[in-house]
Amino acid sequence: MSQNTVEIITIGDEILYGQTLDTNSHWISQELDHLGLKLVHKTTVADHEEAILTAFAEAEKRAQIILITGGLGPTQDDLTKPCLAKYFDTPLVIFPQALAEIKELLKNRGRDLNPHNVKQAELPQSCQMISNQLGTAPGMWFEKNGKIFISMPGVPREMKKMMTDIILPRFKQRFETDITVHRIIRTCTIGESVLIDKIKPWVDALPEQLVLAYYPSIGQVKIRLTAVGNDKAALETILNQAVADIQPYLAKYIFGYGKEELEEVVGNLLLKKKWTVATAESCTGGAIAHKITAVPGSSAYFRGSIIPYHNDLKHQFLQVDKGVFETVGAVSEACVIAMAENARTAFGADVAIATSGIAGPGGATAEKPVGLVWLAIATPQQTHTWELRLGNERSFNIELTAVHALNKLRQTLIEID
Amino acid sequence: MSQNTVEIITIGDEILYGQTLDTNSHWISQELDHLGLKLVHKTTVADHEEAILTAFAEAEKRAQIILITGGLGPTQDDLTKPCLAKYFDTPLVIFPQALAEIKELLKNRGRDLNPHNVKQAELPQSCQMISNQLGTAPGMWFEKNGKIFISMPGVPREMKKMMTDIILPRFKQRFETDITVHRIIRTCTIGESVLIDKIKPWVDALPEQLVLAYYPSIGQVKIRLTAVGNDKAALETILNQAVADIQPYLAKYIFGYGKEELEEVVGNLLLKKKWTVATAESCTGGAIAHKITAVPGSSAYFRGSIIPYHNDLKHQFLQVDKGVFETVGAVSEACVIAMAENARTAFGADVAIATSGIAGPGGATAEKPVGLVWLAIATPQQTHTWELRLGNERSFNIELTAVHALNKLRQTLIEID
Repeated sequence: MSQNTVEIITIGDEILYGQTLDTNSHWISQELDHLGLKLVHKTTVADHEEAILTAFAEAEKRAQIILITGGLGPTQDDLTKPCLAKYFDTPLVIFPQALAEIKELLKNRGRDLNPHNVKQAELPQSCQMISNQLGTAPGMWFEKNGKIFISMPGVPREMKKMMTDIILPRFKQRFETDITVHRIIRTCTIGESVLIDKIKPWVDALPEQLVLAYYPSIGQVKIRLTAVGNDKAALETILNQAVADIQPYLAKYIFGYGKEELEEVVGNLLLKKKWTVATAESCTGGAIAHKITAVPGSSAYFRGSIIPYHNDLKHQFLQVDKGVFETVGAVSEACVIAMAENARTAFGADVAIATSGIAGPGGATAEKPVGLVWLAIATPQQTHTWELRLGNERSFNIELTAVHALNKLRQTLIEID
Repeated sequence: MSQNTVEIITIGDEILYGQTLDTNSHWISQELDHLGLKLVHKTTVADHEEAILTAFAEAEKRAQIILITGGLGPTQDDLTKPCLAKYFDTPLVIFPQALAEIKELLKNRGRDLNPHNVKQAELPQSCQMISNQLGTAPGMWFEKNGKIFISMPGVPREMKKMMTDIILPRFKQRFETDITVHRIIRTCTIGESVLIDKIKPWVDALPEQLVLAYYPSIGQVKIRLTAVGNDKAALETILNQAVADIQPYLAKYIFGYGKEELEEVVGNLLLKKKWTVATAESCTGGAIAHKITAVPGSSAYFRGSIIPYHNDLKHQFLQVDKGVFETVGAVSEACVIAMAENARTAFGADVAIATSGIAGPGGATAEKPVGLVWLAIATPQQTHTWELRLGNERSFNIELTAVHALNKLRQTLIEID
């Protein structure tokens, strides 16, 4: 067992029975990697006392830090707390701070404290409590014989907030690790294999000490560069050079760096330009508006949306000529031009996005297959359009169209600037 | 260690470094559950000989069947075959059948055999080879002292085909397994701890052989009941009775069973009633429309939406009286009533949902905190309203409001029926 090694223990029948896909340990492993901590083992055990206690003992032999998720609910099948109390030979007691925080959280949700909530404030006496800002199950931090055991809720958003706000910063401060520096380059609307072909000369010329990884999701690929060493300034210089060198190959696909989401980048461009936006969404059904309004402060630049799912509404709200439906149909360039231009006027926005397409699985015709989408962006100067040919799956088509639309808006805002 | 127990060992640095999300073991666990085989443990280890050999030895103590995925590539960091050879004390030799199958596969792809491919035909002598119809790495089946070790490639489609065509049918034939039957009861808009209180008498009266578990997500709690035995009809009867008995306690919160999503249930009710729906969304910014339109076939009942994010647009599109903004403000009962009723008319829908609230983090006033949301549903008969007091976090408030809105629509449709 070497220094700075980590094991993750996931507790829960729902994972072993195949009812829940464990994405927590995947996220944690990425975060540990950023810090230069070495994940050496992952274990999933049932909601079963003996199995949990054995997993604790085995993990302690393999790693210095043991991260535990799950099993912290107030019900009988949640065994993590009693097992930790037994393992560390300490009683379960009410932590007044935990109780106060649970009360506050429930108050903010307009609810009263009940006996189950009180039970969630009960923790093994020898632990340090970790606040849970998004739920009623506090985390726990134990130290014994140079080993650290940390228990967190299994609910992903609660676990991630706890890790990000409290646990990872403590790790960073405490462990003298080699310095690991990353750069994340975020691209969209280019497939992973096309991207890899495009940047091959850049990859071949990369300094040997840089490690490269790709993380694809729908419509996006993150490129991660990692440098490890002991001279932070030197690592930063090498990484900055690599990021500068990739630009000629990928410029129009790179929308941001690090944790920046596409909709935040677009929001910042709109703020800077003092422009407002509206959307007229048919096939995307509100997905673009939902992304834009997920960003705090978006009311400063988002005017609103219309989702006219049927032709009569496209005519009524956006004055799309009825002749368009009879000749070229609603999934057409003529239709999205009218939608975008009239949405711009109707919502009093500087720029408007319009979508019309066949998300599937139904709705295809001989000339118009599932995955055909028309996209338009209207600005005060002119209206641009694009024809997309996407896939067979409904949720994929909706998400990918939203990514394309936001990226085209990004490019449009940059070009006009 | 009991009969018919299984452990999954996943081998590979890429999982521990967070570069690949392990979906294999999730799929396998579902398949095992269907067969009544009991997955008791999951382990992920690095590409490291000692770690792999230790994992084999520990798994053998816990389970009767050990399923191994990954580490079968032709490169040096793939260690599964040499480790299995060492563990079972048997040499690596060329299997003529494996070589023939690899040649055939490559021929079908228009490629010639190279030394890497030949190496893939090398297997530990004491194993039974398992054909790989989709790739060049054969699987392996070992038996020793009543234990079964099975090694499969990590590539999901190759592993799944091997499991489906060969391994699962053999398990089915060989193991006299108990039958496991589940029921999933899906509830929404009730917190886990309040729910537990409400159903306490039901829980106390449950037959002992039923195992109960809760899975919360934003606005929803799934209740899972599991019964294990050898008489399938008897198990079904017990479960059906339990599901019937819970109704008086939770009726208005149960929206579906099994894999049914709330938006599908609502869609089916609308279809049955031949009703159409529209939404007028302020604080939810399209989240409700996005959920409704995620369901294939939703164009049959979804008319469309308006997202008037600013007061002038609420007036312009939905005729909300300007006096409302000056007196009670846009986050008010008067505002959502006007929004819902006028959206119903404007979109020619039978029923309309309206939302207006403070999603946060900005926008709060002394009287109106972050998390205050007004919700209205207008039907041909009347308009209902609800005041919600939610949390502090923007994405939580948006999602939870969407769940409340869909559930109120569900209840409204049932009541009118």
